Amino acid sequence: MAQLASYTDYKYYLVTSPTPLVAHVEINRPAKLNAFLEAMWLELRQLFQQLSADPEVRVVILSGAGDRAFTTGLDVQAASQGPLLKDAAGGVDVARKATQLRRHIDEFQECVSAVERCEKPVICVLHGISIGLAIDLSCCADIRICAKDTRFAVKEVDIGMAADIGTLARLPKIVSSFSWVKDVCITARDFGAAEALAVGFVSQVHDSKAAALEAGLKLAEGIASKSPVAVQGTKELLNHSRDHTVAENLRYTSVWNSAALQAADFQVAMLSGMKKTKPRFEKL
Amino acid sequence: MAQLASYTDYKYYLVTSPTPLVAHVEINRPAKLNAFLEAMWLELRQLFQQLSADPEVRVVILSGAGDRAFTTGLDVQAASQGPLLKDAAGGVDVARKATQLRRHIDEFQECVSAVERCEKPVICVLHGISIGLAIDLSCCADIRICAKDTRFAVKEVDIGMAADIGTLARLPKIVSSFSWVKDVCITARDFGAAEALAVGFVSQVHDSKAAALEAGLKLAEGIASKSPVAVQGTKELLNHSRDHTVAENLRYTSVWNSAALQAADFQVAMLSGMKKTKPRFEKL
Amino acid sequence: MAQLASYTDYKYYLVTSPTPLVAHVEINRPAKLNAFLEAMWLELRQLFQQLSADPEVRVVILSGAGDRAFTTGLDVQAASQGPLLKDAAGGVDVARKATQLRRHIDEFQECVSAVERCEKPVICVLHGISIGLAIDLSCCADIRICAKDTRFAVKEVDIGMAADIGTLARLPKIVSSFSWVKDVCITARDFGAAEALAVGFVSQVHDSKAAALEAGLKLAEGIASKSPVAVQGTKELLNHSRDHTVAENLRYTSVWNSAALQAADFQVAMLSGMKKTKPRFEKL
Amino acid sequence: MAQLASYTDYKYYLVTSPTPLVAHVEINRPAKLNAFLEAMWLELRQLFQQLSADPEVRVVILSGAGDRAFTTGLDVQAASQGPLLKDAAGGVDVARKATQLRRHIDEFQECVSAVERCEKPVICVLHGISIGLAIDLSCCADIRICAKDTRFAVKEVDIGMAADIGTLARLPKIVSSFSWVKDVCITARDFGAAEALAVGFVSQVHDSKAAALEAGLKLAEGIASKSPVAVQGTKELLNHSRDHTVAENLRYTSVWNSAALQAADFQVAMLSGMKKTKPRFEKL
Amino acid sequence: MAQLASYTDYKYYLVTSPTPLVAHVEINRPAKLNAFLEAMWLELRQLFQQLSADPEVRVVILSGAGDRAFTTGLDVQAASQGPLLKDAAGGVDVARKATQLRRHIDEFQECVSAVERCEKPVICVLHGISIGLAIDLSCCADIRICAKDTRFAVKEVDIGMAADIGTLARLPKIVSSFSWVKDVCITARDFGAAEALAVGFVSQVHDSKAAALEAGLKLAEGIASKSPVAVQGTKELLNHSRDHTVAENLRYTSVWNSAALQAADFQVAMLSGMKKTKPRFEKL
Amino acid sequence: MAQLASYTDYKYYLVTSPTPLVAHVEINRPAKLNAFLEAMWLELRQLFQQLSADPEVRVVILSGAGDRAFTTGLDVQAASQGPLLKDAAGGVDVARKATQLRRHIDEFQECVSAVERCEKPVICVLHGISIGLAIDLSCCADIRICAKDTRFAVKEVDIGMAADIGTLARLPKIVSSFSWVKDVCITARDFGAAEALAVGFVSQVHDSKAAALEAGLKLAEGIASKSPVAVQGTKELLNHSRDHTVAENLRYTSVWNSAALQAADFQVAMLSGMKKTKPRFEKL
Repeated sequence: MAQLASYTDYKYYLVTSPTPLVAHVEINRPAKLNAFLEAMWLELRQLFQQLSADPEVRVVILSGAGDRAFTTGLDVQAASQGPLLKDAAGGVDVARKATQLRRHIDEFQECVSAVERCEKPVICVLHGISIGLAIDLSCCADIRICAKDTRFAVKEVDIGMAADIGTLARLPKIVSSFSWVKDVCITARDFGAAEALAVGFVSQVHDSKAAALEAGLKLAEGIASKSPVAVQGTKELLNHSRDHTVAENLRYTSVWNSAALQAADFQVAMLSGMKKTKPRFEKL
Repeated sequence: MAQLASYTDYKYYLVTSPTPLVAHVEINRPAKLNAFLEAMWLELRQLFQQLSADPEVRVVILSGAGDRAFTTGLDVQAASQGPLLKDAAGGVDVARKATQLRRHIDEFQECVSAVERCEKPVICVLHGISIGLAIDLSCCADIRICAKDTRFAVKEVDIGMAADIGTLARLPKIVSSFSWVKDVCITARDFGAAEALAVGFVSQVHDSKAAALEAGLKLAEGIASKSPVAVQGTKELLNHSRDHTVAENLRYTSVWNSAALQAADFQVAMLSGMKKTKPRFEKL
Repeated sequence: MAQLASYTDYKYYLVTSPTPLVAHVEINRPAKLNAFLEAMWLELRQLFQQLSADPEVRVVILSGAGDRAFTTGLDVQAASQGPLLKDAAGGVDVARKATQLRRHIDEFQECVSAVERCEKPVICVLHGISIGLAIDLSCCADIRICAKDTRFAVKEVDIGMAADIGTLARLPKIVSSFSWVKDVCITARDFGAAEALAVGFVSQVHDSKAAALEAGLKLAEGIASKSPVAVQGTKELLNHSRDHTVAENLRYTSVWNSAALQAADFQVAMLSGMKKTKPRFEKL
Repeated sequence: MAQLASYTDYKYYLVTSPTPLVAHVEINRPAKLNAFLEAMWLELRQLFQQLSADPEVRVVILSGAGDRAFTTGLDVQAASQGPLLKDAAGGVDVARKATQLRRHIDEFQECVSAVERCEKPVICVLHGISIGLAIDLSCCADIRICAKDTRFAVKEVDIGMAADIGTLARLPKIVSSFSWVKDVCITARDFGAAEALAVGFVSQVHDSKAAALEAGLKLAEGIASKSPVAVQGTKELLNHSRDHTVAENLRYTSVWNSAALQAADFQVAMLSGMKKTKPRFEKL
Repeated sequence: MAQLASYTDYKYYLVTSPTPLVAHVEINRPAKLNAFLEAMWLELRQLFQQLSADPEVRVVILSGAGDRAFTTGLDVQAASQGPLLKDAAGGVDVARKATQLRRHIDEFQECVSAVERCEKPVICVLHGISIGLAIDLSCCADIRICAKDTRFAVKEVDIGMAADIGTLARLPKIVSSFSWVKDVCITARDFGAAEALAVGFVSQVHDSKAAALEAGLKLAEGIASKSPVAVQGTKELLNHSRDHTVAENLRYTSVWNSAALQAADFQVAMLSGMKKTKPRFEKL
Repeated sequence: MAQLASYTDYKYYLVTSPTPLVAHVEINRPAKLNAFLEAMWLELRQLFQQLSADPEVRVVILSGAGDRAFTTGLDVQAASQGPLLKDAAGGVDVARKATQLRRHIDEFQECVSAVERCEKPVICVLHGISIGLAIDLSCCADIRICAKDTRFAVKEVDIGMAADIGTLARLPKIVSSFSWVKDVCITARDFGAAEALAVGFVSQVHDSKAAALEAGLKLAEGIASKSPVAVQGTKELLNHSRDHTVAENLRYTSVWNSAALQAADFQVAMLSGMKKTKPRFEKL
């Protein structure tokens, strides 16, 4: 499928539009199992900022190119030759090194969080090896579905560190059982598609990557046909809800909807509901 | 069953007492599938304020009259002829219209939240069509059970708006999977009793509305036999817990119980526990 | 098994080390089904403070001695003869009595919370009767596993009070369904191992207490072999996550890791990962 | 001055309109130094709800009738014969009595907070005795000015209780020095107009009640001439700011203004600013 | 003056009772200008825990022995020979050293915060050199008064560190101007009594230490004569207010007072108010 | 003075270094009284991000070029011809327009907040006309000083809008009196240097712009000579303190200092303090 015109400059991501108003983003470094270099997360931020504001896009599908992996996470070999580890060996002061690390982590987090900040819903389709950064990334998506061959792991403890790009911040708010969250985060053990479904991490499991992508596309088409004012408002208000009390969210919602309900969408949808026609919504 | 004496003035709700200390509230507009008019939510607030303070009531069951629906939500036809939509067509300023909408949503939220503010536990028994406002309402109840024919949907996106009467504020804190919450809230798709049970939205499914009501009544009878100081304290502290940190809730709990533990109930319950007799608690 | 040398002074707890770096704590009052006296929770605080700072300990297993019960909770008979109830009968002013009760609850909470504050992961292995304080206690652990004969109950409502030692603060953040939480907390009904697994309260169920302990030990051994900087950081950041917004947790995490990533562990783990050797981490 | 037409039914408040769009509310029980009966705070809530939604009102001035007092606070004699104290003597259970008290305080707080919830700015003009409830009430106003004869006191400690109608919640966020706040709240001592000005509790002091009222009226006239969208938005956002982090408030502000900036007021004001004419804003 | 009987075991604090129900605590290492050793802050925690629960104490005055200093803060010479700095030179891992430091700071903070946690009001009387820990400590007191010779400084930046025992947490919530707070905290410059009064850090300045102590004592006597239920409730609710929204504090207050208003104090105070007699309150 | 080498590309800001480690930023559009165009706030973000990470800079002074104004705020004429207002006249849907406005405000806020996010302290020196955006901007600085001719105003209400770039979020947390804050924000009236000093908005007033700049420079030199680890930590922890409870800030501080105290600065400062020499700190 041809790349989407305004998205051809990205080096590590392939962006296509399988159907109008839907963008499909593929992490595109399959020869290295889509392992992440710093340039990749910097590009990720730019890409999702563009998608967020693009009126031609109403839903985003995020998947990994190739058969074997969504992503194996950080490219550890590259990272071990980077400035962070090298400096550590050098004579830099602990506090100054801490400042460098903090700035580095802050920016890394900020890049990955761009997936969450994207105003359009993001459907993450996982398959194969999906470890480390794969969890951080998919936790930023709105809906997660996967192929039955997916092998997940919150892998960071196995490289001697606590996960710091978002898994520990978001996973406890995404799934059902805190006992399970602590088990997989502390032991770094693998878990499969069935377990991910049982705890509510993914909401669908399919027989193959192709089937999962097809299901993701069908879901995306459905969402793309709805009012974008309603859909994007729902995403914003649900993310706000996760981080606020019920009272706070109710108030934020009433302020939000005091403008949103003045959209034509409300009347367009009500009218076509009565007339049994397919509604057509203006871009957003 | 005869209506409860002090609750006969409500036009849209039938209130009976199937057993002492239990009030059964039925949304009572079955000819219109219990669709809500503005007068209905204003009355709902008044009703649950009365129940909250009524010492003859220790538990409330909330259900919908008729065979077909708990409620189909907002009476859209009535709403579309109301002042809100009409003004929108008129020449009112956007900001002034926003103020009207905000006041309207605030009051609507405040009315529906009366179910949550009710100091007595509320058991919501759902059946048939249970969409839109049905979700907002049942999210305010403490325990949800349903008949197996129940058809749920967070329907608002299909009428061009983000849900704003409480579903988005409460649902993520009621069920297990954020991926599932976003799926049903963004797609507005139907889901059934089995799915509602699997994600933890309801805690029991029964073969029919009658069976679900019977189960709800049995549950209510059990609760009504317990210390109301203990039961109402537990409801208050669990709702506080949902919206606060562990440390905050522990402190609030110790202040709360510094009065509650001075109730006779503690000693009555301990004594009858030792004597194997049925405890009898004073009204509250 | 011999008691761990520096832990022999505890009267109500048996502390052994089944394998290096793992401490096994047994509540040890089996003749009374491990029912808690005030001296026991005071000792519990001291014990877990010691474990928290002990560099020879990387994981803690918490279980109950004897065949019949993890614990039946508060020793009600002892409590009913204690000063709290007696004073209540006396002529003390309500507000002054409230101050005494508040101080008492605050200290009780603070003692039990020592399990949560322990910097090392705590695996709670439950069996038999596990009611009242058993739930408060196990909610403070990180991972819960149980024998299939376990009988759980949030029992406090049955003694005329709302639970105030942590169950209401933590349980809604540990499991999937708020409807289920309210059901078991308000009705005080029993639930078994299968139900506990289904809602995510425990993450494993085993055929017997012995099998559960063996599984707990295996889990502990695995965790003890990991970097303690990574493991303890993960515990801290996950507990922080439960009580904070995503944005707050991301910031706290980057500050935390700005020191933690300067540990040798990161490089030791990466190196042994490349060399396929077993890493060896310094004490913490 | 004649009472404002739609406000003549209030028994304890005199409402006039000294100039268009300005409402002047006088607490009107001067024979009893404006001491508050329960009926008075119930009426206060209703009055400020009406003012809040009245498009003919853009600013409210709140003062006390008579020469001697803004208000002496709670009518203690009436309160001591009310049901609350009498019940206390009776045989009611401590926990049940606590429930009654909590409901009573909640409603009392909710009535007084109506002054803060009023969408229009409220200028409180104090004089003479201004103690107890006078502080709770004036803390809910936006701007406080006073006559130089004003005698303030947070008087509650002197009647054996901690203030519970809002002074302790709001005063620390209104003035400069926490040491001063604790001093006046714990000692219940008097303080005068000069001290109130020095700590920032009031922002103007005038020679007499008449002069203070005149200054309040002048202030109100100025505010009434401004865009009500701008003025009411500013009040809402500042009250939100007091209770939220900077980041939270910035976000809430951008959502709020996304509707408000679509008002005509922005263009009307800019245009008349360029043309040096007096702008005329639509009602709100 | 003779030491208070049950407080004679403290090595670094002299505790007397200049008047019934008032305890006067003097930091008592004048030969070293009351500079703090670790043993001193450990003892401080124990002392204020005892005072907090002592029914014979209703108010605490905290001052420094000797003419020259309230305290010069940390005894830097002792600290520089302590394990913390020595380890730093050794071969300990950065992350492990960070853990040691974190535990050390946590405990230091917890000891100093005991002054704030003390349920009785604490009046801090400062004089002479009052730098570093003097600010941390006095920020935990409720009311601060000083002699005109007092020389304050938030001194930590001058020893190469950000203050970490509470000054940065509390000072911005105690005084008026954030610009001033940042100035004195970042520059570490001295400021005197007049400046401290102008910004609201202290609420009284007196000509000498003796005069300040006399004023503190007079203030304490007044507080000691009031209802301890009212006074201690006011302290608790004001400290809660500082850290919570208005809505949160109002709710906490109504729960708190639902027990406190059942004290005899309310009626005792009202009665003696009517009879113009001096009220006598039970111990707390 | 020559521009600082790496800062010569900024079009609207003149950046010099009057003394080592100090950067002086001048808003440089004096012909238009430093009124802001969109390009200017975009550049501001870039500039302060660069300063934040520049190891050659330890303190920043921010002032306005020319004699007459720090800044008159938004260039209203330019803004009124921009896309935002023009679209408003066009046929765009209210909700879609709201989305555009929200994105615009979010970015504008994010640019101005770069001054606050700058890790180095920022001293704002104000003079002449300092209205509208001048207040938003200076609220982001750490220390504010001004010339006595400064004329301040929170001007937004006069152009028909509530201030939305940070004044309402920050001002109530910077100064003493909420009554004063509401007065100046709601009335949009002017206030002068003396009033700004009295309420604590500025911490110094000088006779002329030149004198204020000289004082700012002297302040900056002092700060530049201190440990940058200590200074930048203090800024971070104070900003955190403003937005968090005391307990939260204490914990964040101990984690922060667990790395910072391992800096050489602590020992360098202590050593030179003992030796009475001038300490020399490594870059940060």
